[in-house]
Amino acid sequence: MDRRSFLRTSALGGTAAAASTLAAPAYAQGKRTLTLVTTWGRGLAGVHDSAQRCADSITAMTDGQLTIDLKAAGELVGAFEVFDAVTSGQADMYHGADYYFVGQHPGYAFFTSVPFGMTAQELANWYYQDGGHELHDELGQIFGLKSFLAGNTGAQAGGWFKKEITGPEDFNGLKFRMPGLGGKALGKLGASVQNLPGGEVYQALASGAIDGTEWIGPWADEKAGFQEITKTYYTAGFHEPGAGLSLATNREVFESLSPAHQKVIEIASGEAHQHNLSQFLANNGAALQRLQASGVKILEFPDSVWDAFGKASMEVHAENMGDELYKKIYDSAMTSMKSSSAWLNKSSGAYTAQRDRVLG
Amino acid sequence: MDRRSFLRTSALGGTAAAASTLAAPAYAQGKRTLTLVTTWGRGLAGVHDSAQRCADSITAMTDGQLTIDLKAAGELVGAFEVFDAVTSGQADMYHGADYYFVGQHPGYAFFTSVPFGMTAQELANWYYQDGGHELHDELGQIFGLKSFLAGNTGAQAGGWFKKEITGPEDFNGLKFRMPGLGGKALGKLGASVQNLPGGEVYQALASGAIDGTEWIGPWADEKAGFQEITKTYYTAGFHEPGAGLSLATNREVFESLSPAHQKVIEIASGEAHQHNLSQFLANNGAALQRLQASGVKILEFPDSVWDAFGKASMEVHAENMGDELYKKIYDSAMTSMKSSSAWLNKSSGAYTAQRDRVLG
Repeated sequence: MDRRSFLRTSALGGTAAAASTLAAPAYAQGKRTLTLVTTWGRGLAGVHDSAQRCADSITAMTDGQLTIDLKAAGELVGAFEVFDAVTSGQADMYHGADYYFVGQHPGYAFFTSVPFGMTAQELANWYYQDGGHELHDELGQIFGLKSFLAGNTGAQAGGWFKKEITGPEDFNGLKFRMPGLGGKALGKLGASVQNLPGGEVYQALASGAIDGTEWIGPWADEKAGFQEITKTYYTAGFHEPGAGLSLATNREVFESLSPAHQKVIEIASGEAHQHNLSQFLANNGAALQRLQASGVKILEFPDSVWDAFGKASMEVHAENMGDELYKKIYDSAMTSMKSSSAWLNKSSGAYTAQRDRVLG
Repeated sequence: MDRRSFLRTSALGGTAAAASTLAAPAYAQGKRTLTLVTTWGRGLAGVHDSAQRCADSITAMTDGQLTIDLKAAGELVGAFEVFDAVTSGQADMYHGADYYFVGQHPGYAFFTSVPFGMTAQELANWYYQDGGHELHDELGQIFGLKSFLAGNTGAQAGGWFKKEITGPEDFNGLKFRMPGLGGKALGKLGASVQNLPGGEVYQALASGAIDGTEWIGPWADEKAGFQEITKTYYTAGFHEPGAGLSLATNREVFESLSPAHQKVIEIASGEAHQHNLSQFLANNGAALQRLQASGVKILEFPDSVWDAFGKASMEVHAENMGDELYKKIYDSAMTSMKSSSAWLNKSSGAYTAQRDRVLG
C-alpha cells in the first residue's frame, strides 16, 4: 500500500504537500475531505456517537473546509483493520479503542485502559498534564500516526455471564470476550479469551460461541441487547476502569494540514473525550435500573476474584516490561495515577462520603 | 451603556449584524477581534490559565479570523464588573465563576457550584447530558448572554484558618472569605462572610481584614502564597465540590457570528473545561505534599462541622425555592446528581476501593 495514496484519495478541491518535505510548509488549500474509519458498527451506542461527534465538530468548526467522511466498521474496512488502513494511507483517520492494537505495540493498551489501571479522570490527568499525550505521540511516530484521546466510556462493567461467579476457578475453561491486556489477564485464570469487535458480540453470545462477555456498561450493553440472552450481570470490573477512545490521523496527512486545522482536530478530540464520558455516565444509572426491573441480577465479584484479577494483571504487566517503551509508559502512568488518586481520595472522595453521610 | 456598542468596538476589518433582526442572517465577514474580560488577576494559577486557553484555542482554530483579546481583572474592568460589562456591550465575553453573580440571579450558583452539590464529573454529566446547559441558556436569555462551561477547579479545599476548627461554634464571628451560596450557608453559622476577588485575598488575609479564606485547592493556594500567612489547612470542603467556570458571550455578538465560529466557541469551551480540571487535579497532589513538607498542618473538618454545613446549606437552598427558575434548576441538578452519583459509586467507586484493597 502506497503510504502517500492519501494525497490522491483525500484531497478534494486542492492539493496537499507533506510539510516535512518542504523548508517552508505549503498547506492544503481549499476544501478537503478526510476519510474516517472506525472500529464501531454504525449503531453502537456511545462509541459510534463519539466518532460521529468528532467528525461533526471538525466539519462544523471549519465550515466544511475540512469535511470528515465517517465510514463505520465494515463500510470501508473491518473493525480491526482500521490501524493498518490509516498507517498505510488507505484511510486518513481512525476512531477506535487503541487496545485493539496491542499486537502492533503493547503500549497502546494504556491509551484505552489497562487492568488495575486508571479511572477516566486519572487517565485525563495523566494524558493532558503528566506526559500521557506525549507518550501516545511517541508511539505514533513509530507507526506514522498522530493520535488524540477522543472518547471515554468510564469504568466498564464486569460483564455478562451464564452463571454466577463464586471464585476465580469459575473462569477456568470459560469462553469469554475481553480485548486488550485485561483479556490476557483473564487467560491466566484459565479462560479461553476471545477478542471480537462490538458488532459481533451479540451473535457470538447468542450462539454459544462464547459463554460470556464484557462490553461497556449498562446503557451500551442494554442497547446491544445482552439482557435478552442472559440475566447475570456484574457491574464493577478490573479490566477497563476508564476506557479512552482515540482519534488517530495518518501523520503525513496531519502534517499536511494547516496549523488551524491541526488545532481543530486536537480540540475537537479533547471535547469529544469529555462529552462522551458524560454521555456514558449520565445514561448508565437509569439503564441499570431498567435492566434490574427487567429481571437482570446485578452482582459484584467476590474479593477472592478481585485478588485473582490483581495477581494476573500484575503478571501481564511484568511480562511486557522487557519492552523499553512499554516500561516507560507504565512508569509514567502509574506515577501520575498514584499522585492524582491520592488527591481525589482526599477531595471529591472525602466530600462525597460526607455528602452521603449527612444527606443520607 | 449602548448594548450595541460592540458593533463599533469589536468589529475589525468587517461589519457585523445581529442575526435575530434579519430574515436571512448576514454574518460578520473578515477578521474580527472580541474582547474577553475575566474575573481573574493575570497571574492566578489555573483560573487565568483556562481563560487564556479558551482565547488561544479560538484564535488558533480560526487562524485569527476570530481573535480573542484577553483583558484580565483590572485591565479593562474590575473582577466583579465583567457581567455588566458583557451584558451592556462594553466587552464581548467574560470568563469567570458564575456564582459571583448570584446577585443578578441566584440560579447562577449552579453553574459554578452549590454547597452539598455536584462534583466536577457529576456537573459535567448534568451540564452536557441532563439539561444543565439548556438551563444555563435560559438564564442567558434573561440577561443577554450565551454561556458555556469552560473550566473546572475540581472539589475545592476547605481553606485556611488561623486556628483549628473543633466544632461549628468556631465559625461564630469568624471573618471568612467565601463567595456564592456556600458563603450564605457559612453566614448561618455566625461567620462574617466576605466575597473578594482572587487577586485581593492574600492581602486581606495578611492584613487581618479576614481571619480565614478558601480559595481553590493546594496548587492554586500555594501559588497564591497563603502558607506564608497561616499553617492550618483543611482539604475537603462543603461549599464547592466541583467548581465550573464559564465563558459567556454577549448574546447579540454571539448571534452575529457565523455558525462555524459559534461552534468554535462551544467546542473550545468544552475542551477547556476538561483540560482545566485535569490541570488542577494533576497538580494538587504534589502541591499538598510540598505544603505539608513546609510545615502546613493538613486537616479534615469533624463530622459535627459537616452536619452543621449540611443543615445550613439546605436552609440556603430552601430560601431560594420561591424563585421558579431557581427551583427548576435545583430540581434538574439534584435529579441528575442522584442518578449519576449512584452509578459512579457502583463503577469507578467500587473499582478504586478494590484497587486500593488489592494493591495496597
